[in-house]
Amino acid sequence: MEAPTPADPSTFSIAAVEPASTPGFEGDKAAGEALLKTERKELGDLQEKLWAESRFGGRKRVLLVVQAMDTAGKGGILRHVIGGVDPQGISIAAFKKPTDEELKHHFLWRVEQRLPEPGMIGVFDRSHYEDVLIGRVRKLAPEDEIERRYDEIAEFERRIVDDGVTLRKVMLHISQDEQKERLLERIDRPDKHWKYNPGDLEERALWQDYQTAYQVAIERTSTDAAPWFVVPADRKWYARLAVQRILLEALRGLDLAWPEPEGVDWDRERQALLAT
Amino acid sequence: MEAPTPADPSTFSIAAVEPASTPGFEGDKAAGEALLKTERKELGDLQEKLWAESRFGGRKRVLLVVQAMDTAGKGGILRHVIGGVDPQGISIAAFKKPTDEELKHHFLWRVEQRLPEPGMIGVFDRSHYEDVLIGRVRKLAPEDEIERRYDEIAEFERRIVDDGVTLRKVMLHISQDEQKERLLERIDRPDKHWKYNPGDLEERALWQDYQTAYQVAIERTSTDAAPWFVVPADRKWYARLAVQRILLEALRGLDLAWPEPEGVDWDRERQALLAT
Repeated sequence: MEAPTPADPSTFSIAAVEPASTPGFEGDKAAGEALLKTERKELGDLQEKLWAESRFGGRKRVLLVVQAMDTAGKGGILRHVIGGVDPQGISIAAFKKPTDEELKHHFLWRVEQRLPEPGMIGVFDRSHYEDVLIGRVRKLAPEDEIERRYDEIAEFERRIVDDGVTLRKVMLHISQDEQKERLLERIDRPDKHWKYNPGDLEERALWQDYQTAYQVAIERTSTDAAPWFVVPADRKWYARLAVQRILLEALRGLDLAWPEPEGVDWDRERQALLAT
Repeated sequence: MEAPTPADPSTFSIAAVEPASTPGFEGDKAAGEALLKTERKELGDLQEKLWAESRFGGRKRVLLVVQAMDTAGKGGILRHVIGGVDPQGISIAAFKKPTDEELKHHFLWRVEQRLPEPGMIGVFDRSHYEDVLIGRVRKLAPEDEIERRYDEIAEFERRIVDDGVTLRKVMLHISQDEQKERLLERIDRPDKHWKYNPGDLEERALWQDYQTAYQVAIERTSTDAAPWFVVPADRKWYARLAVQRILLEALRGLDLAWPEPEGVDWDRERQALLAT
């Protein structure tokens, strides 16, 4: 599979991304699932090195931001991609509707607190982008405030990247028809009823507004250091494979190596151990 | 495999547990690994139900406490057992040497803050038991203080169990010879050097003191509501299987069911969705 390409803010058009496509991958579902499994091992190994480096003062960490319309498969990404990594190396932060406490602070306050520590792969299940997505669509803040947020986000992300965070932002892109199928399943299967929220239909009715909000957010905040990837997600297997590969490429780019503790005389340690 | 049996405080003897044994399981490594895989699915399904219940006000959660001598395989349990569950349903807290801030508080303070939320499986990688293990062996507190801690732990655990926590405590029990092999591997393999700490040999020299500290802690705090399981751990595959089964039995005992949201007219939702 080819490495997924980030959204170029000068040419990007969300409408041009076909949700059922599988860019960079020629195989079928079975081949995709097989490759997912194969590449998982390398991802796990690299995360362990990332962790090992952090034990010796390394500041590197990875942050994956995942945004999507309802039912687009965020949960599946967490289960099938993130679930393939040692859970000791993962920190997941799910951002819901802000609490009263959170609303008292700047919108980036709660996000800053949940950044991954060195050595970790952090995942944001929704994120500060909600404040320019639902925030814009539902007019939860004045227009000029929303406008300001794009720049504040870009500035914030530049700062954390400078501090050792490798940031990758993913939008899982499904079609409206596919969402209908997935919501129908939640309605028709009693074991899925708990996942269904009548409010989902209200959000669905605002589909085009959300697409516009994503378009603007991606144009304004996709940078070399903090790129957005719009991942076609009508085929769950492809979305998982693509997101895993995005993470894998990010970790490959970190030049990780097993750290060597200084000042340890290994022969002496060996003798001391054997004498016990 | 038979369900692992908890330590009976009136008869328990750590010296009588053979670290290389595989109680309750007759099969070999390959059979054990196959069963681990089979039972993983049920564990994952039950955790999802636990989570679903919590979305509708359920208070249930599970807490697995894992204690062990160095190299006994805590990391492997996290990777291979906990790693089999959806990472969204897992919260791991690793307790290291207390910070200055933590030392200002009661020893249970930091533990209380890391309890799993409803719907989650929490894992304590080391725990409040360090305060009666290394605390006792290294005399980090006066004898009467250590003595008091057993009762405080029992009281604390009773309280959290009453609040909806299903608590299971595991000691991974390895032999001194097996530890030697595993430390040797860390010394001999450059890619494992980062895991090696010369201080490990000092702890190893106190082996018998630690065994006594475990014996006393288990006698004093293994109860029906908060049982200890001493899991033979010289065979990593067996320890993983046993711990997975301990979790599985705990979840099976919770009578979990898919919640049914009240007041939703599914036919009407279906029609409304189809009209979009």
